[in-house]
This record gives sequence, C-alpha cells and structure tokens, in this order.
Amino acid sequence: MSTEIQAIRWDRDAIVLLDQTLLPGEEVYVECRDVDTLVDAVRRLVVRGAPALGAVGGYGVALAMHQGKREGWSPERLDAEVDRVRDARPTAVNLAWGVDRVRPLKAQGVDAVVAEAHRIVAEDTAANRQLSRHGADWILERCARRPLRVVTHCNTGALATTGWGTAFGIIRDLAERGEIELVYVDETRPLLQGARLTAWECARQGIPYVVQSDGAAASTILRGLADFAVIGADRIARNADTANKIGSVSVALACAAAGIPFVVAAPSSTVDLATGSGADIEIELRAGDEVTRWSGLPTTPTDAQGFNPAFDVTPAAYISAVVTELGVIEPAKGETVESIAGGAR
Amino acid sequence: MSTEIQAIRWDRDAIVLLDQTLLPGEEVYVECRDVDTLVDAVRRLVVRGAPALGAVGGYGVALAMHQGKREGWSPERLDAEVDRVRDARPTAVNLAWGVDRVRPLKAQGVDAVVAEAHRIVAEDTAANRQLSRHGADWILERCARRPLRVVTHCNTGALATTGWGTAFGIIRDLAERGEIELVYVDETRPLLQGARLTAWECARQGIPYVVQSDGAAASTILRGLADFAVIGADRIARNADTANKIGSVSVALACAAAGIPFVVAAPSSTVDLATGSGADIEIELRAGDEVTRWSGLPTTPTDAQGFNPAFDVTPAAYISAVVTELGVIEPAKGETVESIAGGAR
Repeated sequence: MSTEIQAIRWDRDAIVLLDQTLLPGEEVYVECRDVDTLVDAVRRLVVRGAPALGAVGGYGVALAMHQGKREGWSPERLDAEVDRVRDARPTAVNLAWGVDRVRPLKAQGVDAVVAEAHRIVAEDTAANRQLSRHGADWILERCARRPLRVVTHCNTGALATTGWGTAFGIIRDLAERGEIELVYVDETRPLLQGARLTAWECARQGIPYVVQSDGAAASTILRGLADFAVIGADRIARNADTANKIGSVSVALACAAAGIPFVVAAPSSTVDLATGSGADIEIELRAGDEVTRWSGLPTTPTDAQGFNPAFDVTPAAYISAVVTELGVIEPAKGETVESIAGGAR
Repeated sequence: MSTEIQAIRWDRDAIVLLDQTLLPGEEVYVECRDVDTLVDAVRRLVVRGAPALGAVGGYGVALAMHQGKREGWSPERLDAEVDRVRDARPTAVNLAWGVDRVRPLKAQGVDAVVAEAHRIVAEDTAANRQLSRHGADWILERCARRPLRVVTHCNTGALATTGWGTAFGIIRDLAERGEIELVYVDETRPLLQGARLTAWECARQGIPYVVQSDGAAASTILRGLADFAVIGADRIARNADTANKIGSVSVALACAAAGIPFVVAAPSSTVDLATGSGADIEIELRAGDEVTRWSGLPTTPTDAQGFNPAFDVTPAAYISAVVTELGVIEPAKGETVESIAGGAR
C-alpha cells in the first residue's frame, strides 16, 4: 500500500472523491457526474479542506460543462450551475477561488478547463511541499526541545488537500527529518476529522500519535506536554485573523498562555486580501444535529437544539506565524500577510 | 413528574444510584450492596460530581459495615475496604472527605454512620442553595445585560450533587429570578456529561439551552454571545487553582480574553487547603478508549491510542470568582480562599 493518498481525481467527465465521512472504517469512492451530486458531496463533507475544495472548484466547472452538454443547457443555465458549485459552502473561499480561476477558460472548451484544474492540483501539491519546508524550518529555529511534540486540530493532510498536506504537511516534513516525538491529534468534534482522518494519516505515515478530546488540548499545552501547535486555515484575512475549524481558537489561546508557538499553515490562495479582518468572515452555521446525534442516535434529550458553528476566528494577536508556500510572517509581532498572499487574487 | 432529581439514596443497607451513564435515554437505578459494586459504579461514573461523591463516601462506610457484618470481616479488613471506597477515584477529594467525616462514628454503630451521611446530604443541598444565591447575586452585580447568556461545562446540577446543584444551581437560581436567556451547554467529551446530563436537567427545569461541542465554547465567548461562564470544581487548591473536568481551562482562557467573568462554584468542602497549588493535584488519567470509541464502535483507526486526562487545572489568575456557601472570593484580584473553605477540613 502506497502511503500517498489521492482524495480527489478527475476521471473523463467525473470527479472521483474518497468519501471522508466513511473513514477510517471504509475506503469508498464517490463518483460525481452532475452538479447536484457534487454540491451534495461538498455539503456532506465527503470532500473537505480548503485546498481540496480549490481543486473541486476547478474540476467542478468542467463537470458542469460536461453535464450542460449532455443536457443541452443554455449559457445562462451553465453559469447558474457553476455558481451553485462556487457557493456550495460559504466560508470556503478556496472553492470560489478554484471556480474563478478556471472559469475564464470556458470559451476555450472543457479540455482547457480540465488542464487548468490539473494545474491547480499540481501547484497545490508543490506549494504544500514548499510551505511544509518553510514551516518546519521556522519551528526548528524557535523550539529547542528535540524531538518535538505537537498539537494539531482537524485534518490538514493529504485528505484535506490535493496531496501532501498543509499544517499536517509541516508535521510530515518534521517527521521525515526525525524530529517528531508525538502528535496530539484533537478529535475535532462534531465530525471527528482529527480522530478519523488525521489519525488515519498518522497511522499510514508511521508518525506516532495519540487522539485527545478537543477539551484536552489546552491542558496538554499548559502542562508543557507540547512544544508547538499547528493548524490549517479556511480563510486568512488581511490583518491575519484566521478562520479555521471550530475549536482552533482554544488551541491558540492556550499556546499564548503557555508561551509556545501557534502556527497557521495554508496555501497562499487562502489569504484573502479582500477580507479586512475576522469580523468580516461569515461563519457557516451547520445543522445542530451534527452535535446532538451520533451515528444517527441522539446523545442529548430528543428535543435538544445543537449550536453548531463550523468555524471560529483566531485573532492575529494569538498567531505566532502564518506559513504559505511564499514564506512565513509573524502576526503576533505585527507583520502583515501581503508578502505571503497568493498573486492570483 | 417532579422536577427534583434524587441521584443518590440510602435504602436500608444499600446505596441506590441513578445510573448516569444511561441518561438521557434511560432512567435506571443501580443498587450497591457491596464495596465491589460501589467502587465499580464510582469508576464507571454511574455516579459522579464532587458533592455527590462526598455523600457516596459517607454512605460507603455504612455499606462496608453492613457487608462486613454479613461476611464476618475483621476490623482490619473493614478498614481496608473503607479505604478502597475512599480511593476509588484519585482526583475526587470529596470522596475521601465523605469517608473521613463519618469514619470516626464507626464505633457508635452503623446507624450513627448513616445519620451522619444523611447530614452530609442535607448540608450539601442547603449549601448548594446558599452558594447559588451568592453566585447569582455576584453575577447580577457584574453583568449588565439582561437576561443573561451563560456557558457551562460538564454537569453540576442535581445529578452531580445531593440536590439542587452548584454551578448549575447558580444558573437555576438566576432562571428562577427570570434572568436566564440561554445556557450554552458544552457537550463535555469524552463522556458527554453536558450533552446527556446538563441538557436533561435544563429540559426538566424548563431552562432554555443549546448544546455545543467543547471546541465551540471559546468562539461563543469571543463572539460576545455569552455574558459569563460558570463551572464546578473537583478540587480547589489553597492558591485557588482549580481542578475540574477536562476542557474547563479552555473556557477560562476564553473568558479572560473576552473580558467576561469566569466563575467556579463548589461546596466549601471542595477547597483543599492542604493542596498548595494546581501543580500538587494529581490528574486522573482514564482509559484511552473513552476517546477512541463511541458506543462501543471505534472512531479512530483501530490501533489508535487515546490520551484521556479526566481533569485539567485552571490557574487562579483566570478565575474571576470562587463561590462556596460561605461566600465569594475573587482570585484574579488576588483574594485567597481561606474565608470560603470548609471548616471541616
């Protein structure tokens, strides 16, 4: 079994997605050949993670073009369907970014669109390798202890990207250098992307790890059991405020209290210079029953309401470093993101 | 159906416990007539919560005396069995406190021991009413908004005590005064005492609530959706550092960052002047599969290890107020706990 994971693949006229809702128990692939199936897969988190959604946006345009040709859509209908892909999840800026990047090529035909989407994938994987090196170098300069113990939240590995990973890519890079002692994987409620996906990737890569409840992260950090924390990002505002999976800001607050680095890692496309600060980021409110039910069974009184924001915003002041493939900046010291923001925007 | 809940009851020669591992789905009572059954119930969290464990400690001595009489134990064997009750959970200072309080009465016979255990229950319930009034008064003086929105963690209501509740008792007191708009109930992984028990108590008392994942608490607080947070305590050290359910310190850090009150509420018996600071509190490490499994099914790769500390320690600097039945002190302002510590210690 190869240790590399391909969570998103283009197959003639379809997007093939590794169904991450079924991991780690089953490896099942979902073939998306129409916009409805794709939008549903995005909403159900069959595919998730900001960089992966960028590729889905790119391929999604090609998918809509194929479907439109089969079904005889008008140009207006095609545009509307592409917009549905673009807007399938409001907080995920990369989905819109992927759509917008390939859209201008529509006039050149579907092959040109697919080729551009392939370039998104290739560039993303290469960018992840590059940002992982930057991040690992930065951490090795700041943390004295060897080998390192790290807290991470949600999933930011190959499953969340087109390959290699972002925050988890930094951990992989450090592990390749022999510098990782232990990864504390936050289980990441409500959907357990940490327990299910990051743990699965750790196991597959042979990186030592334990799974902890999200509430344990702050204590692990305050007790001196971790040397740094690293998370991904769904959107990084111009002032470096960062939207990421719910629970991220707790990790940041604990790192600040303990005086250890809190690192955000993402492709430069995640930096959104059009968003001034975290206050301008719309927080996706997902269905409450993701919190109040478990595998279909209620964990609460049956009439309980769940409050289920998908993301939180970590203020820049608590972020030691933001890493993209273009470099590292230190928001807590007042450095700004312009130098590491994607030129494509 | 009465809204009052009796989670612990003495019945002739047995302790009858409402099995909290089965709530909110089923109301089942476990009858403990021997030390093995009781220790197992305590370890499995059939009964939990510091004040409830104080009553269990008291009744546990009587239970052991009955069993010893039935089985012809030597005085040494009886002492050893009482010690097993006393030490069933290392972090729970109240369990030992309850045992130690009734133990001197052994020579007067089991009826005297039971009577003293009954007094623990009566005093605890009365103390909870008193501390709830103190806490509610303090909060109404500090928080301007009406009605109030509050975050709480774990379960500190009638199920966790001998009656009424501690931190949740403050919420009940405020609700009786018409001052509660909404309770944000942290689900409290891994065992979901919030989702299962606090939600059940809110529903039973008619107090409006939502359940959120533990990772959402910091965001709820930082977004200005809550006016204060209140939690219980398993042990409060002499410097006011507080051990409580894992995840508590995250709530404290967020309150400090947001500038809203973080309140700890517990009977005065929870204040342990013999413990200098949080560094002296042993943190119970529970079985990892509480994190890695759910209703018997793995949520992680099957060989994953769970890291499962049961408690964390909130440093005094992040605690706005500690409330006992004896009054309120403000650790973040440097006030000390002596004036609100139980005289029994």
